[in-house]
Amino acid sequence: MEQPLRKIIEVKGRIWLEAEGIKFLGPGRIQLLELIKEQGSISKAAKIMGMSYRKAWILIDEMNTVSSTPVVLTQKGGQSGGGAHVTQTGEMLIIYFKSLYERYNTFLKQEQSEFETLMAQEK
Amino acid sequence: MEQPLRKIIEVKGRIWLEAEGIKFLGPGRIQLLELIKEQGSISKAAKIMGMSYRKAWILIDEMNTVSSTPVVLTQKGGQSGGGAHVTQTGEMLIIYFKSLYERYNTFLKQEQSEFETLMAQEK
Repeated sequence: MEQPLRKIIEVKGRIWLEAEGIKFLGPGRIQLLELIKEQGSISKAAKIMGMSYRKAWILIDEMNTVSSTPVVLTQKGGQSGGGAHVTQTGEMLIIYFKSLYERYNTFLKQEQSEFETLMAQEK
Repeated sequence: MEQPLRKIIEVKGRIWLEAEGIKFLGPGRIQLLELIKEQGSISKAAKIMGMSYRKAWILIDEMNTVSSTPVVLTQKGGQSGGGAHVTQTGEMLIIYFKSLYERYNTFLKQEQSEFETLMAQEK
């Protein structure tokens, strides 16, 4: 008998955290936090992600609302518009989400391999 | 110190199968297959899901294209418009996806519980 599926199948997924029905953290927000940490600036981080400053600020504001202490703090500055930095809570959330994402990808890879084994048996 | 997050956080996710970049199976399609199996009719299954017959047919056609043998077969009928049934391949895919979905929900629940433990430690 031939293989039951004639195309290459991939097990795909998404994972994120919600705070009472509202998105709180996901891969995009984590990338934004990491870029703010690296660049020391919300506008530079937003630019790298091809995102408007306004959009980046909304995401940060949403995260700051959920967290008891802000995840990003800004300093008012001169002509350069001040800077931004990721707080200890923000750092903790980056570390947590990256480890969650790693476990998640391991889960997907394992399922992928099990699916392939199953399909080979169905031949 | 207070709890770092002041809202209830949920670990959420989605999982599906893709065939070369095109969606192949997900919870909605599996529900459609199960309803066709139960109702013996695509139109009845579509109606229960609040989906147009056309939309249901497109989903089935996409699944049939990926599978070497169809997942749903239709018989032309008289005034009742014939019937439909889920093939052995379709049945196998229902069983597979439901078990994948169960493992996936177990993963999410475990992550939820680990996240809560982590947050309690951060107090």
